[in-house]
Amino acid sequence: MHNVKKVTDLIGDDGKQYIKEHITELHPADIADIIETLDEEKKKELFNLLHTEIASKVIVEVNEHSRDQILEDINKEKLTDIVEEMSSDDAADLIADLPKEEAKDILEKLHWEDSTEVQKLLKYPEDTAGGIMQTELLSVREEMLVEDAIIQLMALSENIGDVPNVFVVDKNRRLVGILPVRKLLIVKHEMPISGIIDRNVISVNVNEDQEEVANIFKKYDLISLAVVDDDSRLVGRIQIDDIVDVLVEEASEDMLHMAGIYQDEKIMDPPLKSVRMRLPWLVINLATATLAASVVGLFQDTLQAMVILAMFMPIVAGMGGNAGTQALTVTIRGIALGELSFNNAKRAVLNGITIGVLNGVVTGVIMALIAYYWKGNYMLGIVLGLAMMVNLFIANFFGIIIPLVLKWLKIDPAVASSIFLTALTDCIGFFSFLGLATLFIKYLV
Amino acid sequence: MHNVKKVTDLIGDDGKQYIKEHITELHPADIADIIETLDEEKKKELFNLLHTEIASKVIVEVNEHSRDQILEDINKEKLTDIVEEMSSDDAADLIADLPKEEAKDILEKLHWEDSTEVQKLLKYPEDTAGGIMQTELLSVREEMLVEDAIIQLMALSENIGDVPNVFVVDKNRRLVGILPVRKLLIVKHEMPISGIIDRNVISVNVNEDQEEVANIFKKYDLISLAVVDDDSRLVGRIQIDDIVDVLVEEASEDMLHMAGIYQDEKIMDPPLKSVRMRLPWLVINLATATLAASVVGLFQDTLQAMVILAMFMPIVAGMGGNAGTQALTVTIRGIALGELSFNNAKRAVLNGITIGVLNGVVTGVIMALIAYYWKGNYMLGIVLGLAMMVNLFIANFFGIIIPLVLKWLKIDPAVASSIFLTALTDCIGFFSFLGLATLFIKYLV
Repeated sequence: MHNVKKVTDLIGDDGKQYIKEHITELHPADIADIIETLDEEKKKELFNLLHTEIASKVIVEVNEHSRDQILEDINKEKLTDIVEEMSSDDAADLIADLPKEEAKDILEKLHWEDSTEVQKLLKYPEDTAGGIMQTELLSVREEMLVEDAIIQLMALSENIGDVPNVFVVDKNRRLVGILPVRKLLIVKHEMPISGIIDRNVISVNVNEDQEEVANIFKKYDLISLAVVDDDSRLVGRIQIDDIVDVLVEEASEDMLHMAGIYQDEKIMDPPLKSVRMRLPWLVINLATATLAASVVGLFQDTLQAMVILAMFMPIVAGMGGNAGTQALTVTIRGIALGELSFNNAKRAVLNGITIGVLNGVVTGVIMALIAYYWKGNYMLGIVLGLAMMVNLFIANFFGIIIPLVLKWLKIDPAVASSIFLTALTDCIGFFSFLGLATLFIKYLV
Repeated sequence: MHNVKKVTDLIGDDGKQYIKEHITELHPADIADIIETLDEEKKKELFNLLHTEIASKVIVEVNEHSRDQILEDINKEKLTDIVEEMSSDDAADLIADLPKEEAKDILEKLHWEDSTEVQKLLKYPEDTAGGIMQTELLSVREEMLVEDAIIQLMALSENIGDVPNVFVVDKNRRLVGILPVRKLLIVKHEMPISGIIDRNVISVNVNEDQEEVANIFKKYDLISLAVVDDDSRLVGRIQIDDIVDVLVEEASEDMLHMAGIYQDEKIMDPPLKSVRMRLPWLVINLATATLAASVVGLFQDTLQAMVILAMFMPIVAGMGGNAGTQALTVTIRGIALGELSFNNAKRAVLNGITIGVLNGVVTGVIMALIAYYWKGNYMLGIVLGLAMMVNLFIANFFGIIIPLVLKWLKIDPAVASSIFLTALTDCIGFFSFLGLATLFIKYLV
């Protein structure tokens, strides 16, 4: 589709004119891809070659890091022009990320209406329906005639693009239904639209959480969704492509959180940023690992008496950790997808207990056999097997309980669950294995 | 929106008529939600109360487990009627999951055209564009007049629902563009449509991988996408709501795979199914943990000489595991989202090295200080700190290398990466810590 090398070579020499003429043939998402491959100077150069309208689309598509580079010392008049071209939600997102002074400046320079729209949007928290909606709306009044609706649609649709439905509101701007565009094709122009309105319309409140909004889209297979305020007045719409971003973002976030990365780290982020995001978790783990080490410290005499116990110690703790991660992942996914709630938690917990017992017994027996054949010590096998069963049970049980309790406390389960669970499976793994070994030490050595 | 308790009570007594009348007012997705809460017998009962058309929508919305229960001993004529009502992609998915004999039976009972469509779709692998597309199409010929296009649109759209665009094909059914429905409203009926066709149309080949298709939707913010065969002939379309499912599915799958669960396990799956999905990973881990244990076994004399080393051993290995999981998660997410490829891998690897060195040094120094203040042994601190640095470096370096190599070998990186990485960080963690301790044993004790 494009030749990145060629474009790269052309910037900076007399190819500029060529680029300016030909790059506009590319889709903004493709131009963004090209920009990502360039170094900082060339990013700015290429971006400055773009017409305002294309620039306003490209800046939405590039990643955060490139966007920061491009906007760093951009001319304010140019930035204002670019923001004017954007849809309200994208404009609000961009302005929210600017330094405070600069944001204020741009808001003052914008046309009065655009500025008001954006400022309205900026008031909603980023992760709510209000934070992801746009205020550009295709809406018609329920008492209109078909011909008026068509004129309205034509006037508004240039800014909004192709949509399958138009929202219908009453005289107080309260949402009353939707009107499929194709139905306008088959009715007489002088008829009222009231006969072709679909009044079974789904909407969300402007304060609804974005994850919940995404679940509504998913559940009802929607393409766009009306956003209403507390008085049922239509205030915006959310498009499926924004929801696609939310779904991908939420899934990525959960994955990263579970791995102990607390912000949306991307593979191409600068390494120092990655270090800052990853270190807190590693330090917390250092603390919980030290706690686990002190559990081992309780059993120094046992270890002194039988040093091969040290070989098997990490197996018990590690297997608990693995089983715990399995249980946690399924549970956190279930919560995120709306499949697990407090209503059906009891069944999930009972299932978890069964899984813990069965997997504990199977891996415990296998490990007991390995230890017996390897070291010729059947008592070691029994102790190891029992400790494994205890720890896998704990892992599976608390792998469901911990995220549910965190959810109940309104703490994001993906963030905090694995800290608690790892600490628990480490400590209980060491305690049960070395504790049992201490109890049976005379049969062991 | 509904009163689950009430509906549940009503099934089985004389409320049946009431349900039959009132349940049809609910959205099929809500009926599916109610069904999920019922036991097996009541699921079947409620499903049998539904009209064929609604039943065909509900069966698509319920989870796999409930679907299997409902379809277990359903009357074949009823099932055939339900399948007739479904869109081709849903019908193909359902038939693909039936036992072979039953599937053949239903295919024979279906109308000839439906049966042909479904059999065509069944030939495409599940995870390709062909596997997720539907063959019901809104298409018009490029030489048509506006009035013919409108008639065609009206005739086809009852089956397909509201779409913002119609595909345009030439006389050989090759895709030439799209036609926005709203533009039909503003042109004269006796004009040719050729003037309002948008010829800048994006399409995918029928054999394209579904993850790649999802990335195209995401990149270009699409709502529907044309699917073409090797001769550019239009064969189907993919809708955004199917892609939403793909995105959620792929993200969930990656998460589950990374946690060592090899199929799409759901929180409410029966426990025996979960055990079957989770055991293989636990057994593989038992094997790699035994390998790591044998590394510890090499250093029995050192441990015998200084048993407190056993306390710190799991910390080094565990921290390597944590850092590795962070690196793996970011890398696997990057590959899935198309942000990391072989082209820009070098930069990612260099970043990984920097992250490994920095996080290694920071946590190594902290751990060295903890060990020194706790045990009053500065040499123990040095050995522990160095081992930690080595292991965090290894974890971050191979956390990027391993998924890339697996991708290059065309093995799913989410599935296999963490097996190799855990084995590596365990073995290297123990080896570097106990190896350094052995080297410096006379300064340690």
